[in-house]
Amino acid sequence: MLPYLAEFIGTMLLIILGCGVVANVNLERSGMKGAGSIQITIAWGLAVLIPAFIFGEASGASFNPALTLALAFDGSFPWSQVAGYIAAQVAGAFVGGCIVYLLFKKHFDATPDPDTKLGVFATGPSVSNLWLNFFSEFVGTFILVFAIKGIGNVSGIPAGLDKLFVFGIIVAIGMSLGGLTGYAINPARDLGPRLAHAVLPIKGKRDSNWKYGLLVPIFGPILGALSAVALFAVLPW
Amino acid sequence: MLPYLAEFIGTMLLIILGCGVVANVNLERSGMKGAGSIQITIAWGLAVLIPAFIFGEASGASFNPALTLALAFDGSFPWSQVAGYIAAQVAGAFVGGCIVYLLFKKHFDATPDPDTKLGVFATGPSVSNLWLNFFSEFVGTFILVFAIKGIGNVSGIPAGLDKLFVFGIIVAIGMSLGGLTGYAINPARDLGPRLAHAVLPIKGKRDSNWKYGLLVPIFGPILGALSAVALFAVLPW
Amino acid sequence: MLPYLAEFIGTMLLIILGCGVVANVNLERSGMKGAGSIQITIAWGLAVLIPAFIFGEASGASFNPALTLALAFDGSFPWSQVAGYIAAQVAGAFVGGCIVYLLFKKHFDATPDPDTKLGVFATGPSVSNLWLNFFSEFVGTFILVFAIKGIGNVSGIPAGLDKLFVFGIIVAIGMSLGGLTGYAINPARDLGPRLAHAVLPIKGKRDSNWKYGLLVPIFGPILGALSAVALFAVLPW
Amino acid sequence: MLPYLAEFIGTMLLIILGCGVVANVNLERSGMKGAGSIQITIAWGLAVLIPAFIFGEASGASFNPALTLALAFDGSFPWSQVAGYIAAQVAGAFVGGCIVYLLFKKHFDATPDPDTKLGVFATGPSVSNLWLNFFSEFVGTFILVFAIKGIGNVSGIPAGLDKLFVFGIIVAIGMSLGGLTGYAINPARDLGPRLAHAVLPIKGKRDSNWKYGLLVPIFGPILGALSAVALFAVLPW
Repeated sequence: MLPYLAEFIGTMLLIILGCGVVANVNLERSGMKGAGSIQITIAWGLAVLIPAFIFGEASGASFNPALTLALAFDGSFPWSQVAGYIAAQVAGAFVGGCIVYLLFKKHFDATPDPDTKLGVFATGPSVSNLWLNFFSEFVGTFILVFAIKGIGNVSGIPAGLDKLFVFGIIVAIGMSLGGLTGYAINPARDLGPRLAHAVLPIKGKRDSNWKYGLLVPIFGPILGALSAVALFAVLPW
Repeated sequence: MLPYLAEFIGTMLLIILGCGVVANVNLERSGMKGAGSIQITIAWGLAVLIPAFIFGEASGASFNPALTLALAFDGSFPWSQVAGYIAAQVAGAFVGGCIVYLLFKKHFDATPDPDTKLGVFATGPSVSNLWLNFFSEFVGTFILVFAIKGIGNVSGIPAGLDKLFVFGIIVAIGMSLGGLTGYAINPARDLGPRLAHAVLPIKGKRDSNWKYGLLVPIFGPILGALSAVALFAVLPW
Repeated sequence: MLPYLAEFIGTMLLIILGCGVVANVNLERSGMKGAGSIQITIAWGLAVLIPAFIFGEASGASFNPALTLALAFDGSFPWSQVAGYIAAQVAGAFVGGCIVYLLFKKHFDATPDPDTKLGVFATGPSVSNLWLNFFSEFVGTFILVFAIKGIGNVSGIPAGLDKLFVFGIIVAIGMSLGGLTGYAINPARDLGPRLAHAVLPIKGKRDSNWKYGLLVPIFGPILGALSAVALFAVLPW
Repeated sequence: MLPYLAEFIGTMLLIILGCGVVANVNLERSGMKGAGSIQITIAWGLAVLIPAFIFGEASGASFNPALTLALAFDGSFPWSQVAGYIAAQVAGAFVGGCIVYLLFKKHFDATPDPDTKLGVFATGPSVSNLWLNFFSEFVGTFILVFAIKGIGNVSGIPAGLDKLFVFGIIVAIGMSLGGLTGYAINPARDLGPRLAHAVLPIKGKRDSNWKYGLLVPIFGPILGALSAVALFAVLPW
């Protein structure tokens, strides 16, 4: 039972810190409003780092259905646990989104713009274009998964330093490509909090943009992750 | 005697660097005025990192009554030393606050806003709401203590790298949740400098907001820390 | 074949992330427009770090013709592979530039200023002066290569930590000298994407400034790198 | 001869990168003008990190007369080499200042404000007050030297990680106290480039403010460093 629980709590923590920084930086009356994308991208990196070292040995610290699927496809994760992992990840992300809402309840109330409110929970494109948005999530997740596989190439790396590299990967993707679609690069990270946005009684909220949310941040990451392990497998290491 | 002395000096150093960055960034005429929350959150992380590696072996580098209490509750710290640790932490934080005042004396004099002056010493909410403010400190400290316990899950981590993880935890909590209540997440960090604010002859100062200070930044962290070790203990690692 | 392939993919990845951050921060309608040089310099450091740990064991992770030439000159890299490495690096950088264009296609279209568009691909001076611009690239690459050699002086450094030092070197050169010429410090990093700029059908683009591009960012780095290994070799370590 | 040469080159490199970032961020027409104190403080940390790992084994990587004196006072460095080290450090800092001037020649020419030009080379107070300015440099250097000694308390720390801690110390002092006097915390860092400012033919320069420069950034750091090793020695570790 532990691996599923670890994925649940870990993804919840990831979303509290990750969606937390978006709320912290973008909602009205927050003491850190306006800090911008440097704070957002570093904090998302830390949001992955922290559950990664807590739960790395318990579950492998995937927290990401695209990564879980790719590792199963790759043969390094049992298919029998895939469905349970994904369910735990999406559920954890949903609960994380609800906690962020509760923490920032008064700041949501103070923020009039409905797009800003949705943006705390879910990703969206800076320029709408289905194929290019899909390509952005594909490339971001490809780099994520290819680089995670690549850490294994550093023979003799001390325990824990690999986690710092994962932090670096997340920050890199955010800083370099994040302005395109908000770098979901993880279906649970987008779907769970978007569900929270849909069901929570957020004052003055807009629709949850499912037309985008059920396509781009789910299938872009999955195809990117599968392509990354496929390329990694065929390279003549 | 060394552990108490280590907690005293370590917490003093933590506050010199931690309250120091708030003064450095917020007071009038400082050469770094306006640098904002990225500098504040990184510097608070370093403010913990530095005494942590200096005093880690001498005292365990707690510097935080909520953490000390939680570790005693957890069975990993002797109850007999708890009172001495907490006294040393609060005293160190008080002296640290006095040193920050002396260092920035002319900049305090040049700053008219009394809230800005209090804000160098003590935390406060961006939106006043006792239960939500308490919840913010509860969640922040829960994450702090749960993650500190979680570092122990990384078997074989080299000496020193654990300190970098603690740095990452502090920065993460600040960047993601700091705009809510200023993330005390440590009763001594708030109480010591608030006492300094109360007794120091700061020109044009306001009251020290004890109504908030004796409740939220003391009991929120303590309950968050206790809950974190309780959850950590029941998880089937 | 692996080393050449590794240099090709690694340099492509370096450019996707490196030119990516310039697009992400400078092009109109990007969600991270305006984040400035802190994000640019950190992200370029990560753009080197990530392919470095993936491909370090496969090819040595040079990704830089000036470094490859200097290591051959130094005797620590076989001359027979130099031409193949450089070809792979320039080709990878070219493809990386094309992918950045595709990712940010709509943002390029939305950006009227032709200098901003060229600036995503290629470096240029803030004040035009052939000798001083050359000197800037010379000094930057000298520091890069001298410091990379210097990592070898840290005996017993654990695997992976050396990569963090390389990250630090890249960030340092960018933060301290980047405002002079945009710190190519790597002929492939400039030439490959500049070629992409020249051949891609970018709307409203200017000429690719070959007069600068064929001189400064090629010969400055090469001479700086050669001088660095020469000084390193004569020092009485 | 190597240790003196290492101190010379290392301090030169420290100043190229350290005074470099001030020029890069503050001089007119630089491509990174206005990046502010976050970039300045991180880059100064890297400016120490890089020569520290290159020359750590060759000379101990002091680069700082106050640290060299304190270590001699402490018994961990031979008095016979103190004068040579200090001479090498000041000379290296002077040459480093000259190289920064040459690199940014056109940007100095484009900058009308003489205080900004002096500020690239030498430190100065945000509020003039001899005793408080002295106290600022005293406290900053005390923390620097006390923390450097404290790294030795982390038993079993892997080679190289200690350098990352030194980086953290420099960034911490800058971010938390840098707005007071510009944190010389090193007599050579201030004296060498100030000498360069005095002798270089900088267009439209002001006097080099020797009244401040011969007192505060020399004696504040030396007394702070000596006090730090004295306290460290009497603590009952």
